[in-house]
Amino acid sequence: MSELYEKSRLAKEACKALSLKTRGAKDAALLHMATALQEAKAAILQANSQDLAENSHLSKALQDRLRLTPERIDSMAQGLIEVVNLPDPVGEEIQMTKRPNGLKIRKVRVPIGVIGMIYEARPNVTADAAALCLKSGNAVILRGGSEARHSNLAIAKVLQAALKETDIPADALQIIEDTDRAIVAELIRLREYIDLVIPRGGAGLIKFVSQNATVPVIETGVGNCHIYVDAEADLEMAKNIIVNGKCQRPGVCNALEKALIHEKVAAEFLPEMVKELQKRGVLVKGCPYARQFVPELTPAEMDDWATEYLDLIMAIRVVESLDDALTHIARYSTKHSEAIVTNNYFTAKRFTEEVDAAAVYVNASTRFTDGGEFGLGAEIGISTQKMHARGPMGLEELTTVKYVIEGEGQIR
Amino acid sequence: MSELYEKSRLAKEACKALSLKTRGAKDAALLHMATALQEAKAAILQANSQDLAENSHLSKALQDRLRLTPERIDSMAQGLIEVVNLPDPVGEEIQMTKRPNGLKIRKVRVPIGVIGMIYEARPNVTADAAALCLKSGNAVILRGGSEARHSNLAIAKVLQAALKETDIPADALQIIEDTDRAIVAELIRLREYIDLVIPRGGAGLIKFVSQNATVPVIETGVGNCHIYVDAEADLEMAKNIIVNGKCQRPGVCNALEKALIHEKVAAEFLPEMVKELQKRGVLVKGCPYARQFVPELTPAEMDDWATEYLDLIMAIRVVESLDDALTHIARYSTKHSEAIVTNNYFTAKRFTEEVDAAAVYVNASTRFTDGGEFGLGAEIGISTQKMHARGPMGLEELTTVKYVIEGEGQIR
Repeated sequence: MSELYEKSRLAKEACKALSLKTRGAKDAALLHMATALQEAKAAILQANSQDLAENSHLSKALQDRLRLTPERIDSMAQGLIEVVNLPDPVGEEIQMTKRPNGLKIRKVRVPIGVIGMIYEARPNVTADAAALCLKSGNAVILRGGSEARHSNLAIAKVLQAALKETDIPADALQIIEDTDRAIVAELIRLREYIDLVIPRGGAGLIKFVSQNATVPVIETGVGNCHIYVDAEADLEMAKNIIVNGKCQRPGVCNALEKALIHEKVAAEFLPEMVKELQKRGVLVKGCPYARQFVPELTPAEMDDWATEYLDLIMAIRVVESLDDALTHIARYSTKHSEAIVTNNYFTAKRFTEEVDAAAVYVNASTRFTDGGEFGLGAEIGISTQKMHARGPMGLEELTTVKYVIEGEGQIR
Repeated sequence: MSELYEKSRLAKEACKALSLKTRGAKDAALLHMATALQEAKAAILQANSQDLAENSHLSKALQDRLRLTPERIDSMAQGLIEVVNLPDPVGEEIQMTKRPNGLKIRKVRVPIGVIGMIYEARPNVTADAAALCLKSGNAVILRGGSEARHSNLAIAKVLQAALKETDIPADALQIIEDTDRAIVAELIRLREYIDLVIPRGGAGLIKFVSQNATVPVIETGVGNCHIYVDAEADLEMAKNIIVNGKCQRPGVCNALEKALIHEKVAAEFLPEMVKELQKRGVLVKGCPYARQFVPELTPAEMDDWATEYLDLIMAIRVVESLDDALTHIARYSTKHSEAIVTNNYFTAKRFTEEVDAAAVYVNASTRFTDGGEFGLGAEIGISTQKMHARGPMGLEELTTVKYVIEGEGQIR
């Protein structure tokens, strides 16, 4: 039997026992895993240096995402401890109805079962995803990218060994060692054993998974995020938000990629804003109308409007109205995070009501779309789809519900 | 362009305007549609008699499901009025967090978008589904089965004509006239226009949709429901619940299909219970152990345990313990509704915690798994999957959420 089938079967078997474990047992296991990670620093760094050596062709940015340091391993362990501190969603009663016939109907959170986590690049996802899945009572099958193979395996083995010394079934944590891409295609159709697949990575991975899976999928993360600077905007605020949204961490999904500027403020706002961005190394592109205000802008091509740069690049379009901006966003948005800067009540109201996205901002940076910033604690990803979960996904989003109905012999 | 593409495109266009309509506008439209249905009785009955004539080969039960009467059209109209009386979930704020930095994060219910409804047999689903989708702000594409083609079209045309006289965009309600099965295969992959597909019908349809769709799916309805009669059960109560679960309406998904009887009570309970079922025309099958108690039972075959009869048939198995029963249920359950009859606190607790199903009953009939009985008002189906919605799906389950974040210039 293949590695994938065998490990998936073991995970499915383990998930039932895991679903019944108390918070105490799960938290104790997570704390033990955190300690184990810190004690295994040398082995993990060793494995990571192998990955770095095998991937010296990668860009600086990607190498940085791949690199582990003693501090990064500490913060991975700290991540586990933060999950310990989050409340356990399992068993939470989210609704109780007493019916006229006396039936007591309780709606209770329960684990989903077995979660397949398919991710790229950053090895810390191995520990984060394991912790969130286990705390929410789910078994997890990890399938990391080939670049981080040695690091992912080293981390997972440490966690698995630690789990064996606890009350939690160790089979609930599986990692697929085979990095052949064909395994992903098999995994996402393994309805017999896997209840949910969460792909976390580039647009190519997400698209492949959502178009080929028969297991339910939660799509995450692609963010072609816009900001619209209204005719009635506070321009100083707009400038600060755009600089923050674009420059504070350009490689993440909630970073700003596009700015739409109302024509009434373009002459005053654009030259100043472009200067601020360029000062920070941003390549600024513009539509023809924007280039009337700042002629030296790089011309934006048609492709630009749909592109998530994940880099110090921003494209600017000057629009004639709120409707113009809404039409542009409806067309190019990936429904992740969209923002408006305005002082006008009705303009803000229309924007929040009409923009279809996981997070819609008025006068704030899109960079806040994040489990921690939203107060959920850790997150396993940011859902950009509408079913089951939308926006940052914490522990609650890793559960489903069941109805428990208590009677005294009621019949219909 | 094909009928499916053109109508799906129109639905997508209409769904934005619909999503912004007030409850008042939506309720007025639904009331108008209800009146129109009652006024068009003759035409609808005429279409229905065409369907009945073309399907005279169907079983009596299926013909009855297909048949419309003046009373059934009245109750369809009444169904619309009941949806009018339900609260509008759109815009409901289900969570508000004020963060330390002053950001106000509101989680608000919004419509899903365009819902594809694929259903078989009963023509009343045409009106029910249209009403629930429109009330929850969603455009809907209806695709009924070929048996009810004339009836479905007649009903949909009446509803569409009525909608044109209201403030709700008429394109939000589409019906696909082509009953070629290939259309379903296309519909469930139309991610460009359709946000969710709900199949409602037999196991074959559900399986085809869930294995071939790229649009997100909510699986509904297949119910191979069990009842476990514990050693410490109130046997009179158990008998009443089994008779009710099996006989009150055998053709529906929450009807009982299997009974598992603890061996300690089998001798006392089985002969009496079988007599009660047989009196009501039930064909009772039994495992070899059950036939030790009631030799004249029809032998149950291996296939029986996995079969949803939807008919006056029940299979009985005598088990040695609660564990035995739990193992049997875990193996054959379709995760719809499962019940236990017991007086023992710990046995009930274990059953509700360990059985993985949308609805788990203690001392009550599985027939209560229903939107109306659960107090949700109408239902669009009963989800037997774990993602997004589980159990009876009402208006709330036809919405998603969006985060609206209000700031005064916050940056990270």
